[in-house]
Amino acid sequence: MAQKGILVVISGPAGSGKGTVNAHLLQTGDFAFSVSATTRAPRPGEIEGVNYHFITKEDFLRRIADGDMLEYTEYCGNYYGTPRREAEAVLESGKNLILEIEVDGASQVKRKFPDAVLIMLLPPSYAVQEQRLRGRGTETEDKVLARLAQAKEELNYLPRYDYVVYNEDGGALRCAEEIMEILRAEQHCVYRHPDAIENYFKS
Amino acid sequence: MAQKGILVVISGPAGSGKGTVNAHLLQTGDFAFSVSATTRAPRPGEIEGVNYHFITKEDFLRRIADGDMLEYTEYCGNYYGTPRREAEAVLESGKNLILEIEVDGASQVKRKFPDAVLIMLLPPSYAVQEQRLRGRGTETEDKVLARLAQAKEELNYLPRYDYVVYNEDGGALRCAEEIMEILRAEQHCVYRHPDAIENYFKS
Repeated sequence: MAQKGILVVISGPAGSGKGTVNAHLLQTGDFAFSVSATTRAPRPGEIEGVNYHFITKEDFLRRIADGDMLEYTEYCGNYYGTPRREAEAVLESGKNLILEIEVDGASQVKRKFPDAVLIMLLPPSYAVQEQRLRGRGTETEDKVLARLAQAKEELNYLPRYDYVVYNEDGGALRCAEEIMEILRAEQHCVYRHPDAIENYFKS
Repeated sequence: MAQKGILVVISGPAGSGKGTVNAHLLQTGDFAFSVSATTRAPRPGEIEGVNYHFITKEDFLRRIADGDMLEYTEYCGNYYGTPRREAEAVLESGKNLILEIEVDGASQVKRKFPDAVLIMLLPPSYAVQEQRLRGRGTETEDKVLARLAQAKEELNYLPRYDYVVYNEDGGALRCAEEIMEILRAEQHCVYRHPDAIENYFKS
C-alpha cells in the first residue's frame, strides 16, 4: 500500500531543542524538504528552485488569494511562505514533509490542510527552559526575558496542536524517535485510508 | 509524568488473527485485564471477582441504566458486560486495557468513553481472508460463507474506528508492535494532557 507522506508541523519555544530534534529527523531519510517562496531578492550564490522560489510581491499576493500558500509570514518587508503545490509534490512521493514554523503559521497550515500533524516540542518545564536559555550565556538578560515571555504566549496555542513531545535534557534523539512513532501511528488512521473498504474487496 | 493507561478496543473479522495479536500484546506486560460482569450462574471452579463478577439480572439492568456498563451484550438469555469502574481502576494504575469486542460493542464504548482508542485489525484483503477461513479446514462451507458475510457487515463499521492495522500472513507480532506504537503515540495527544500548561509553569 503506497501511502502519501505526512505534513508535519513542528513548533517549539526557545530552549525546546527543536533544531537538534529536526536534524535527527532529517537523518532518517523519511523526510524531504519543500522549497519556500519569497519576495526578497536572491543573495549571491542562491539558486532559484533550490534555496527559494524567488517571486514578485504581486505573484506572492495572488497565490495567497488563491489559497496556494499553506502559510506565510512577512519579515522586514519581504514575504516568505510554503507553496501548497510544493508541499503536495513531496507528500505524493511518499516522503514526509517537516515545516518548522511558529504557532501562528501552524494554525494557518491546519486550517488549509487538515491532514497536517501539529506537534509542539516543549522543554520539561518552565524552570528547565529558563535554565537552558540562561545557560547558553550568549544572550543579554533582556533578550532572555523577551524569549521567556514569548514562550508563555506560544504555550497558549498548545490546544490547537495534535501532539506534545517533551524534550528532557539530552533527549533530542528520543524526541525524534517519538515523533517517528507518532507519524507511523498516524499512517494507520482510518481517515487516511478513504478507499480501505473498496480496496479490501478489490484485491 | 505518571499517565493513565489507554482503553483499547480491538475488533477484527474472522481470519484477522486477532487472538494471536492480542496474545502478543498481553505478553508485553503493559496491559491488564478487567473482570467482566455476567448474570449467568458460576460454573464449578469459577471464582467471583476472578473469572467474572456474578451479579443478578436486576443489578445488571440497573448498572446499564446508571451508565456503569461500557458495553454489554446478551447471549443465550444471559448478560455479559464491562463495568466502567473496573475499567477505570485498570487505567488509573497506568496499565492499558484491551477489550476484544465486536463492532457494535466498540461503538457503545466510544460513545460512553470517548478517550478509548478503536483499532480494526484486518486481513490484507477479502481474498486472503477467504483463503484463511477455508485453509483451516475445520468448518463447513455454510459456516465459512456465514463468517464471510459477517465480515462484510463488520467492515461497514470501519469509519467509526480510529485506526486500521493490516495483518499480513505471519504478521501477528508486527501487528502487535504497530498497535504498541499507536498507543505510545496516543499518549502524546494534547487532549490527554489537559493540565499540560498548568504543570509546565508549576514544576
